[in-house]
Amino acid sequence: MFEEVKAAYQRIKGVANHTPVMTSTTLNKMVNAECFFKCENFQKIGAFKIRGAFNALSQLTPEQKKKGVITHSSGNHAQALALAAKILGIKAVIVMPENASAVKVAATKGYGAEVVFCGPKPEDREEAVTPLIKQYGYKLIHPYNDLKVIYGAGTAAYELIKEVGKLDYIFSPVGGGGLLSGTSIATKGLSPSTNVIGVEPKNADDAYRSFKEGRIFPSVNPNTIADGLRTSLGSITFKIIREKVDEIVTVSEELIIDAMQFLWERMKMVVEPSGAVSLAGVLSKAIDVNGKKIGIIVSGGNIDLPEFFTHLREKIA
Amino acid sequence: MFEEVKAAYQRIKGVANHTPVMTSTTLNKMVNAECFFKCENFQKIGAFKIRGAFNALSQLTPEQKKKGVITHSSGNHAQALALAAKILGIKAVIVMPENASAVKVAATKGYGAEVVFCGPKPEDREEAVTPLIKQYGYKLIHPYNDLKVIYGAGTAAYELIKEVGKLDYIFSPVGGGGLLSGTSIATKGLSPSTNVIGVEPKNADDAYRSFKEGRIFPSVNPNTIADGLRTSLGSITFKIIREKVDEIVTVSEELIIDAMQFLWERMKMVVEPSGAVSLAGVLSKAIDVNGKKIGIIVSGGNIDLPEFFTHLREKIA
Repeated sequence: MFEEVKAAYQRIKGVANHTPVMTSTTLNKMVNAECFFKCENFQKIGAFKIRGAFNALSQLTPEQKKKGVITHSSGNHAQALALAAKILGIKAVIVMPENASAVKVAATKGYGAEVVFCGPKPEDREEAVTPLIKQYGYKLIHPYNDLKVIYGAGTAAYELIKEVGKLDYIFSPVGGGGLLSGTSIATKGLSPSTNVIGVEPKNADDAYRSFKEGRIFPSVNPNTIADGLRTSLGSITFKIIREKVDEIVTVSEELIIDAMQFLWERMKMVVEPSGAVSLAGVLSKAIDVNGKKIGIIVSGGNIDLPEFFTHLREKIA
Repeated sequence: MFEEVKAAYQRIKGVANHTPVMTSTTLNKMVNAECFFKCENFQKIGAFKIRGAFNALSQLTPEQKKKGVITHSSGNHAQALALAAKILGIKAVIVMPENASAVKVAATKGYGAEVVFCGPKPEDREEAVTPLIKQYGYKLIHPYNDLKVIYGAGTAAYELIKEVGKLDYIFSPVGGGGLLSGTSIATKGLSPSTNVIGVEPKNADDAYRSFKEGRIFPSVNPNTIADGLRTSLGSITFKIIREKVDEIVTVSEELIIDAMQFLWERMKMVVEPSGAVSLAGVLSKAIDVNGKKIGIIVSGGNIDLPEFFTHLREKIA
């Protein structure tokens, strides 16, 4: 599997950004550790998702490329697949719930993808996708339960460790598990002794429970501000996580916002709630990182700020 | 003068951050130019000011170091001088208006500086500083009208051009003129053909008028959201700007907020209004940058976001 991450790294080079690694003296003092942030908020489309989408699409057969691809997503995977398809000249159809944010719909269409709307329930998505695949022969690119998507996601941790050297710990958010499983493959491949920690909102702790109990608990309407982490583990991501991840910890909504505020105010980075969850895991002190060298994956920075800027504009009016 | 910027670069190495250069494919398409942002929002204390403060303090005589330094500032220079003094083990006294933001006062004290409050009017500051200098022999480190501070500020443009190569244009905000004059010295030293453009809020256009008319117009209570650019040019900065800057353009408050929103939402960077002014200058189209390679100095990212995070916390309560 590790060889596949290395191959993915070669494939996405020059397409995905090699994102910067950031540090904070203040944080290092706060937690008495040496922390390295891998900043996927600075990635193309604002999140790590372009890595997996491009890795998957670039390996399609000519026949598959001709027919096009489809997925269901209301979030970052939609934009990632749309952009990767545009770069490769492939048709992309994205099924989005009718209540998806207008900004995200516009961005997805902006990359040239065809958007098909479905009902707001999780099962509505599959119901919309299945007949389209039957009729047009589109290849489904699942947002996370797909090995090529997982290997692509793993390239973020791969780049981080190649750049800063061996880590004692690496913290990654976990929702559907694509980023965490990719991170675990890359990390254990480069440095088997590094502890891989998944971090999940307490209010959406299905991955935590699945990891502990050894079977997949589905996520049922979780109420968390980290909207990218509301999904359940898939069969593939669950299996990799059980094998390669050392621990999953959960964090409160308050701590997620504290972490976000630190990233915005002190590190000057716009990070979405899901992207701040890994730092919240460090701040939770569930893991003793005293004196250690740790990696923190910031998964993305896509957050709409219309109220904030409307308010600023009112001030000058 | 250029040799002094190079010397400053050697002095501040390892103390100030070598800040990252960021790019945006979306912006490059919007303005049909190749844009390179020098991101001083990721600098220590959140703004370029540490460069000048450290360059000045590290050249004090042993006698001056023993007596300590003083300045007046309600903004980024206060924190910069406090941190530089702390690193060098020098006493720093900062005169701040009594209506300065509590966050900035706390940050300045946090670096170990002594804060002395004065009245809110510009002349109150000097009135507070003068007797303290008389009594204790402190050395005044002016926020911008000081050659060593200017040379230090110039190291940001120096690093940018060393990293990305020759530019056709470089855009820098102008308030008191420290950053713009330092930028012009570094830029003309490395690449005399590069056009140096100062950008100023229309509502605080004293530098623009001074540049055009050939004499210093004082800034009188300007009403701009770019709070770092409300000051007047100094005698030293005015002289350098007249000699080495090619053009000063002005931008509306609306355009400053548009630029800020682009930096936050699209580039995922927290930038303060003053720091977004240089991008606003590019977006204003006052200068034809079509097909050109341009540098954009983002001066800082210090903005308090209490309302924003209070609002987020209310959502999860």
